[in-house]
Formats: sequence, C-alpha cells, structure tokens
Amino acid sequence: MANLRGGDLSRLRQLNSLTAIRALRGAGPLTLSALAERTGLSRPSMKEVADELMELGWVEEVPPSPGTMGRPARRYRFRADSGCLVGIDIGGHNVRAALSDLDGEILAETRQPVLPGAPLEERLAAIDRAVSGCLALSGRSAADLWTVAVGTTGVLTPEGRVTFSAAIPAWTGLDLAGKLREMFSCQVLIENDSRLAALAEARRGAAQGARNVVFLHVGRRMGTGLIIDGKVHRGFGAAAGEIVMLPEARWYDAPEHLNGCEVVPEGTAPEDAAGYTLAAARDGDPVALAAVDRYVDDLAVGTAAMVLVLDPQMVVLGGGFSRSADVLLAPLRERLERACMRMPEVRASTLGDECVVMGAIDYAADHLSRELFTSDAPLAPMR
Amino acid sequence: MANLRGGDLSRLRQLNSLTAIRALRGAGPLTLSALAERTGLSRPSMKEVADELMELGWVEEVPPSPGTMGRPARRYRFRADSGCLVGIDIGGHNVRAALSDLDGEILAETRQPVLPGAPLEERLAAIDRAVSGCLALSGRSAADLWTVAVGTTGVLTPEGRVTFSAAIPAWTGLDLAGKLREMFSCQVLIENDSRLAALAEARRGAAQGARNVVFLHVGRRMGTGLIIDGKVHRGFGAAAGEIVMLPEARWYDAPEHLNGCEVVPEGTAPEDAAGYTLAAARDGDPVALAAVDRYVDDLAVGTAAMVLVLDPQMVVLGGGFSRSADVLLAPLRERLERACMRMPEVRASTLGDECVVMGAIDYAADHLSRELFTSDAPLAPMR
Repeated sequence: MANLRGGDLSRLRQLNSLTAIRALRGAGPLTLSALAERTGLSRPSMKEVADELMELGWVEEVPPSPGTMGRPARRYRFRADSGCLVGIDIGGHNVRAALSDLDGEILAETRQPVLPGAPLEERLAAIDRAVSGCLALSGRSAADLWTVAVGTTGVLTPEGRVTFSAAIPAWTGLDLAGKLREMFSCQVLIENDSRLAALAEARRGAAQGARNVVFLHVGRRMGTGLIIDGKVHRGFGAAAGEIVMLPEARWYDAPEHLNGCEVVPEGTAPEDAAGYTLAAARDGDPVALAAVDRYVDDLAVGTAAMVLVLDPQMVVLGGGFSRSADVLLAPLRERLERACMRMPEVRASTLGDECVVMGAIDYAADHLSRELFTSDAPLAPMR
Repeated sequence: MANLRGGDLSRLRQLNSLTAIRALRGAGPLTLSALAERTGLSRPSMKEVADELMELGWVEEVPPSPGTMGRPARRYRFRADSGCLVGIDIGGHNVRAALSDLDGEILAETRQPVLPGAPLEERLAAIDRAVSGCLALSGRSAADLWTVAVGTTGVLTPEGRVTFSAAIPAWTGLDLAGKLREMFSCQVLIENDSRLAALAEARRGAAQGARNVVFLHVGRRMGTGLIIDGKVHRGFGAAAGEIVMLPEARWYDAPEHLNGCEVVPEGTAPEDAAGYTLAAARDGDPVALAAVDRYVDDLAVGTAAMVLVLDPQMVVLGGGFSRSADVLLAPLRERLERACMRMPEVRASTLGDECVVMGAIDYAADHLSRELFTSDAPLAPMR
C-alpha cells in the first residue's frame, strides 16, 4: 500500500469534507450510513469527517425523530440556518426582497412600492427598508447576512455599474455595486433581473430541470435571460440577451400593438393599457385579437432568432404580460413551429412576480457553493 | 491523523494518477520535481504515482537530454503516441482527414476531391481512402485508432443522423454515425462542421484563448458555430447556430449579392462567381464595392442578432469568402459597431481550409480528456 504523506492526507480530508457538505446541502438530515453511501466513503471515515465538520460548526446533529423504535441512528444536517442570503429585485415600481437560509429556503419576503421617477436616495432607502423588513420578519440581524444578490432592471457592466436604464432614469450611470457595498458589509452580487428570473424558472419554476432555457420577459419593456448548460449566461461584457436592440428582431416596438389598441379606454395609464387589450382578446373581441396577432407576430421574430441560435430545451414566457399567457402561448407556439428548426417547449412562468427575488436567492446560493467547492484551502470554522 | 481505509486510499490514488496525467498531457517531458509541483503531491508520493502509471503504460521515462551535466534528473511524459485520433471533414467538394497523437499533435493530413452529386458509396469510399492515407503516411494501422471525430456539412440529430444537407444531396436522411461505425471499429463522434471549425479557432486559431466565440462560416452557404464557456454549443437537439433559417436575419440569400454581380464573367461556375466580385472590390471597382456593401449589410443583421444574444468576446470570419477578409472585415465591423450593445473583436480565421479537421482533432482530444477525468473507475492498463 502506498505511503501517504501529510500533504496528501490533508488534501484527501478536505475533499471528503466538501463532498459531505455537498451531500448534506439541500437534503434533509442524513444518517451516517446514508452519508457514507452518498459520498462513497467508508463508515468509519465518514464518522471522522462528520466529527470534524461538527467541530468546525458546518454540520450539526439532529435530535432523533420522536417515536423511533430501538436505538435511534445519529442524523446530521448542514447548518443552513447559521447564516442567511438576501435576494433583492429592483424594478421601476417596486423593490422586493427575500431572505433565505444558506440552502436557499425562503424565510421572509417584503415589497416596497417606489415611483419610477423617484430620486436615487429614495430608492436606496426603499432597498434598505425592504431588507430590514426581511431581517425583522425572520428574527435575524445584519450580522447574519452572508450574501446579498441583487437583480436590477437596466444594462450593467461586469463590475455592477448601470450603463443604461429606461425604467429607472435615476439609475443610468450609477455605480450600483459601489452604493450597495456601502449599505451592506457582506458580499454583494449584482445581475440583470431577467437573467435571475431565468435562473429561478430553471431551478424551481416552469423550466425546472432544464439546462438550456430562454426566458422571455414580456411586458411594457422586453428583456431576456439565458440559461446555458445550467448557468446564467452573462456574456463577455455582461451584455448577453439584448436581442431587443436589433430592429429586425421587431421586439422594441412590439408592446405598442397592445398599448395602442382601440379597445383601451381613453385616459388609461400607460402601464395598464395592454391589460385591457389582452382581456378583450380573451373575451373574443376581434379588434383586440388582431392586435394580439400583430404583437405575437413581432414577439415571435426575436424569439425565433434566439431559438435558432441556441436551440434551448424550453422557452419560458414571463414578465407582466405573462399573466395573459392563456391568450399568448398558443399563437406564439404556432409561429415558432413555422420558424424554428426544432421546436422547444414553450411554457408560462410559474413564479410570476416573485421570479427575480427567487432567482437572486438561487444566484447567491450557487455562489456560496462555488466558493465552498472550488477553494483549495481547507475549510475554515463556520463564521 | 485520520485512519484511512482501503476504499479511501484507492480513491486518493486514482485522483492522483489522473492529476498527474492531466499535468503531463500537452506539456513536454517533466521531471519528478516539476510534476510534484504541478500536482501538489509530495515528491515521494509523486514517485509512487509515476511508477504505477509507467507500469500501466500511460507514462514513460524519457532518455536524459544529451550533454546534461552531472546526474540527469528522470523525466516523464504522457505516452501520447500510444494511440491516435483521426479528424475528418466531409464537405461538398472534398473529404479531408488528419491524424494526430493523443495530445492532438497532427502527424499526417490528406485530401480527397469528391463531386457534390457523387453517390453515397463513392463519398464513403473517399472517406475510407482519406483515413487509410493518413494511417499510411504516419506508419500507423487501424488498430492504433482510439477515436474518429467527423465534421460534416448539414443538420444533424443528436445521434448523428443527417436531417438535411443542401451541399451533399445524398447525405439527407443518412444514418451517418451508423455508416461510420461500420467502417471504423473505434469510437466515432459526429458533429456539425461549423461547430468544429469554431472549436479549432478558439483552441489554436484566431480566437485562441477566448471562451465565448461566434464563428461565421461565410461562403456559398452560410453557417455558424458557437463556443460558449469554452465548449462547443450544440443545443438541446443539436440544432444550435441556425440563424440562417430566419428570413429576418437576411443571411440565406446574402451570397446572391456577390454571385449575381455584373462583374462576374458570363459562364462562370457558380462556386467561382463570388470570387470575381470580391477581387474586383479589392481593386476598387464601384459596382463590385456596391455589391459587397449589400452583402455585408445582410451579413451584419444575422451576425448582430448572435452578438446581441450571446455577447461573445470574439467573432471569427471563416469559410470560403474569408479569403477576402481584407475586403469584408472593415465594413462588417462598421455595421456591428452601430448595431451592437458591446462590440466584440472581429477577426479573420487563421486556419482556413484546415479548420474543420483541426476542430475534429480537438473535439476528439477533449472527449478523451473527459473520458479520462470523469470516470470513477480506477485507470485501466493502456490499450
């Protein structure tokens, strides 16, 4: 048998610890035997690893289930509650926040309305209140925060500066990452809101289990988020998913077919206009149906471009107009059938207004996993 | 110190062996100390791993360099020459083949002209001759072949059946993977030719080192290959990269601007027509320049669609027309600057006609790496 040296041994031990945490994260409590089976370690080695992880604070023993017969087996779980993650969705009209444990299980949610034209400081204060609200609801303090992940409307640089935001004028040019790092002392991640929505749909929503997903944000503004090989696709300069900028893709003005339809009552606020058209189309109004047809004609061009380029397993229809998915899905499918080489599944978002905060939480949890599992250093004691 | 059991030990040993092979693959011969440094193992452990790998046949000792002073250090290398990989490019007019060692270093190349309308059996015979030629040139036999990777024109199913090929009529509907598995007893991989060209450019050509690349195959037929996160992007149904199918992307008929230009002499063969227009444009002919402008206008629409969707680091112009990259690159860049959110680098292919065979070799070498490094089984003796 090979002679093993100290360096090799600590390498093996670290590998085993990470394998064990990975097996425990997101799973319920596991017995030593179940853990040994999942990690491929021998039971005695597994026991040593578990003892070490308990000592470091990453893992804890769970009291035996009540009513267990005989001598109950020890069960272990990842201490998901020893820290928390916050996801924030910064939109034109609302700031939403959610707080989860380290496994991404959501413990509290808040929403703060804000006006699109509100000055910068007002929106930042709303973010602060949304997060404080989550902490209060879940009985946590800012010191428990490990990661804050933020989804925002607008075009971002890779470093988290907002290049341009049509929905929030005060956002354009803002060093959002810098501002948020002043507000939160933990790690801060920034991503485009449609990309986070795509991630949430692929993890827990309409596209659960799919590794290649095109998420369509359809509403007054059009956006997309791409999941490629299971991961959010940002692009080299964080500018992926901007098919709306191509006039030939016919997305930019597409919502005007709905907004400008003559079934919309005079004096309707711009953000409510499309809703009237979609409702009238549902009721069979021929004028509204024609407007929906023209809208879907345009929507299908940009969508077909993405489907032809990426050949995704699924297309998910999200965003404000997806509340009328019953009116939109069938005609969209029909046009894609004609335009695409291989027809993907086309489904409506199941997470609705929550999809960006959920995606932010999933993004933060993924980031934690990567930090844990790509580090070459031995595990530190839990903070 | 933890007590280690047999199962854990063999796991560690396997991990160490694979780490050592990975360090040696593609690198020159390494001394024990250099290997230990790259793998993070202690020198004595490294010696044990090296001895075991020599015994299994994966690694060999290299004779000391002539003229070395003092006692020369032992040096080891991966036995890249103990097997070989073949890459094949099946096009309308040619079958090309290349043979490499297991590191992807090319040892022989052949080309067999074939007519686009040639019957199936004739093209298969040309493939056979191209491969036999490579084997003869490099003094190898069919028994040395580990993997044959094939790039073909046409649309493929994930299993390697040709759904449609405009360039090779006899190819449409063919179970190409099945046919080639009858011809070669080793592993056979099939991929679209533009995707393999993209891989070659990202590994050894114009886009070397870039992990997100859009490869444009511009010629009489238009195609694309996408490299996303360092890997060939196939899509869920192996249908990615087909932007040419979208009429609004204006690719399908784009070559007609060059083919139908009035500077082309009457009676020119269709495959030579565009060359006249491109040459006349290079010489400043205003009619040819106007045709090139219209061509690039159309080329830029489909290209901008892909750039806006993916935000790649680089766009590589390949295919037959890329021999006139000097005429095409500047106007293409100018249009993309206007249409794109973030401008990628735009470069001409540096591998030219060889790019598909090179990509096929790289694809086979990647496949071998994955097989070696994702297997849970201990290393088998080298075949």
